[in-house]
Amino acid sequence: MSHSDVRLDFNFAMDLSLPEEGLSVKEIEGLEAIAREIHRGLVAMKEVGQIPFYQLPYQEESALRLLQKANEYRESFENLVVLGIGGSALGAKAVISSLQGPTFNLLPPEKRGRAMRVFICDNIDPDALSALLDLLDFKKTLFNVISKSGDSIETMSQFTWMRQLLIDRVGADWRRHIVVTTDPVKGNLRAMVAEEGFVSFEIPPGVGGRFSVLSPVGLFPAAMAGVDIQELLSGARRADVRAAQEDLWLNPAYMLAAVQYLMFKKKKNVLVLMPYSEMMFPIAEWYCQLWAESIGKRFSLKGEEVNTGSTPVAACGVKDQHSQLQLYMEGPRDKFILFFLLEHFQKNIPIPKETFEQGNLSYLGSHTMEAILKAEAQATEAALRDAGRPSSRVLIPRRTPYDLGQLLFLLEVATAFAGGLFEVNPFDQPGVELGKKMTGGLLGRPGHEAFKDLVPPKKRNEQFVI
Amino acid sequence: MSHSDVRLDFNFAMDLSLPEEGLSVKEIEGLEAIAREIHRGLVAMKEVGQIPFYQLPYQEESALRLLQKANEYRESFENLVVLGIGGSALGAKAVISSLQGPTFNLLPPEKRGRAMRVFICDNIDPDALSALLDLLDFKKTLFNVISKSGDSIETMSQFTWMRQLLIDRVGADWRRHIVVTTDPVKGNLRAMVAEEGFVSFEIPPGVGGRFSVLSPVGLFPAAMAGVDIQELLSGARRADVRAAQEDLWLNPAYMLAAVQYLMFKKKKNVLVLMPYSEMMFPIAEWYCQLWAESIGKRFSLKGEEVNTGSTPVAACGVKDQHSQLQLYMEGPRDKFILFFLLEHFQKNIPIPKETFEQGNLSYLGSHTMEAILKAEAQATEAALRDAGRPSSRVLIPRRTPYDLGQLLFLLEVATAFAGGLFEVNPFDQPGVELGKKMTGGLLGRPGHEAFKDLVPPKKRNEQFVI
Repeated sequence: MSHSDVRLDFNFAMDLSLPEEGLSVKEIEGLEAIAREIHRGLVAMKEVGQIPFYQLPYQEESALRLLQKANEYRESFENLVVLGIGGSALGAKAVISSLQGPTFNLLPPEKRGRAMRVFICDNIDPDALSALLDLLDFKKTLFNVISKSGDSIETMSQFTWMRQLLIDRVGADWRRHIVVTTDPVKGNLRAMVAEEGFVSFEIPPGVGGRFSVLSPVGLFPAAMAGVDIQELLSGARRADVRAAQEDLWLNPAYMLAAVQYLMFKKKKNVLVLMPYSEMMFPIAEWYCQLWAESIGKRFSLKGEEVNTGSTPVAACGVKDQHSQLQLYMEGPRDKFILFFLLEHFQKNIPIPKETFEQGNLSYLGSHTMEAILKAEAQATEAALRDAGRPSSRVLIPRRTPYDLGQLLFLLEVATAFAGGLFEVNPFDQPGVELGKKMTGGLLGRPGHEAFKDLVPPKKRNEQFVI
Repeated sequence: MSHSDVRLDFNFAMDLSLPEEGLSVKEIEGLEAIAREIHRGLVAMKEVGQIPFYQLPYQEESALRLLQKANEYRESFENLVVLGIGGSALGAKAVISSLQGPTFNLLPPEKRGRAMRVFICDNIDPDALSALLDLLDFKKTLFNVISKSGDSIETMSQFTWMRQLLIDRVGADWRRHIVVTTDPVKGNLRAMVAEEGFVSFEIPPGVGGRFSVLSPVGLFPAAMAGVDIQELLSGARRADVRAAQEDLWLNPAYMLAAVQYLMFKKKKNVLVLMPYSEMMFPIAEWYCQLWAESIGKRFSLKGEEVNTGSTPVAACGVKDQHSQLQLYMEGPRDKFILFFLLEHFQKNIPIPKETFEQGNLSYLGSHTMEAILKAEAQATEAALRDAGRPSSRVLIPRRTPYDLGQLLFLLEVATAFAGGLFEVNPFDQPGVELGKKMTGGLLGRPGHEAFKDLVPPKKRNEQFVI
């Protein structure tokens, strides 16, 4: 199968299609100078290794080692449980769900082939955690603990608990059931690796959680799930070529960032991310995190208070046509909608011709399910255009690791580039620190005593509790 | 176990806690007159049967019949597949997921007790549909086709396809595998019931999809999943008492609507719905639909063009602290955050005291997982308050059918009441018609020819495709 490119179609974001709400060519041209500047800044930073996510598609040796380990583990284990949260979970979830779908883990072993069941455990709800435990034979379960800092309270709580259960249930051999993915040198988890001799993988320094899907953080779980991670990287390398072009008009990643930025400037503070694919929906959730944490910032690079960033909303076609579309069509003109359209589905489901005598359904019988889905996507986009609601399409040729690699990498570059347009640092997340410190204060973390006092007392004004 | 009420705590929406961004008591008092008027309007409409969702909690005989049927079916089937979309799917999903969690279907039969595996099939992605089929032994599978009109293109396509597969796989007995939930009199599905003799349930006239969770639409799948639907209705009746109070200051449903309305008027066009429970997250998705379709409207009741409605965004605590929180803390001041806090989890997971010698994790060892989750929720709410981001809490005593019934009904009344505040009709959805007609036009539906011409040609300006 020859490969096609993941493409961006922004016709319905332009004033040729939406005279009032669309962008003019001039508006985009107005960004060309700053785009060149941002491009050169990114290139300069790349060259001195300051944006290491750009290197991940080229870590083929590391990928080979991950594959070898995955093959070894497949001999003795049936389940992989990922303990991670945020960027340590969403990438693997996006890749594995997109390629396997939501029902893979329900297949009987003989239908799963060499793919392991992967469970992503990215929350600390004790009821949900207990329910997961009810399923697992620990003797056949491998745990991949993922935390760059080794300090994430959720992951470390899960791990401390699961470690004890492992010791109780599998005995002396328990260390063989643990794989750690963390910083090469620093942190609690790296220290534990040294002490206990766990197998471990390294997260390259400077690769933040939300840009880590193509590092061992995302690749090892994907490999365990049977994903061809070399194809994933190969697709990402293709995207890197396309997304390295200086010319905004040729670069789909830069142009996506530019359109999202200009729409925000036109008071579209809501960014709807809407894949027309049940299986690829978690990609929208992954991009929600990538975009929100990277662009949602209080201070600009110049230190001015800007409180900027569009709010991503994940929606799923066709089903959210029956949920959110009414609001998108008729509510405030505060949205820009980005569709993710799969050009070729794998399965062909023709609707049977013999339909019912009553009713008006016989027209369905000459179509496939794919054709109906695509007609709905096209009609929805057209109806939104008629209502003056701008949109664009990301076109994904096939649901393959190669195309997924392209897509993920393009969205990462778009986000990094958008940092330049919004004039914020896309690689930090200073806003979550206060909450973490207050949590530490409430739980008695040493050195965090003062933050406890910042948390308001539990006592509430009872007039406002009904 | 004695029951407590689901409550609303709106302290952190008030200016006593957030001097600049909060609401004053006077602002709420300013709504008292209109609130009384809306209340009286709702009561008058209820009395003449114009808002039939209010009656659903009292349909105890209908619930009994559903239970009896569910008990019969459990003798011969292991799986229920719901074919439905939007309001025909989200309610059952919210109830079943909240009570069973995301991993229930993976349990071996002996651990599932008398609960059936329920699969909600609310999309037409052919790859996902095929993956589901790979799992199912049709001989042990019951299909519940749900469409009020009998005209939903997605559900009818699924049904036409599944019906043929059923005939192929189970033979003469196929009709026994189908249960139809639809209008009592009208539509394709009702006609098929008459023709084929399927077992059927009735959706009471005037109950729209998004208000149907307590009708057979939600109750039958819930009963099959082993949910105590009588308790669900009992909780809803308790909420009906609380939500029938004229005084805004005593009525949690009205006050929730008032706070959401006033926040929208203060330019918070984004409404974040954030349960701190992995299992109850689908309730946020259900409320997203309820709110978006009910309030997102172009025209006011007076016929003025208003383009109103806040945009709901579903987020999940604690995990989305590692995804969306950065934006909520530091991005634009365009959000009101509604937390859904569970007061008592079912499972107790103490973190083992014996932690590691290295590092700084020993403070975790004196807590339970529930305590950590709650500390994070409290710290997040406090940090948002410090950043001037208003929020409120819906407090849910326990993850039981009774409390879930309370919660769902309160949110339904809040939405109906909010229609009055926003001055829109909360029970229609005129904005989705154009897209449906265009879809019909594209697929050759009789009478829809003209709409095909409204869809722009596939040819795009190639400058805008990169």
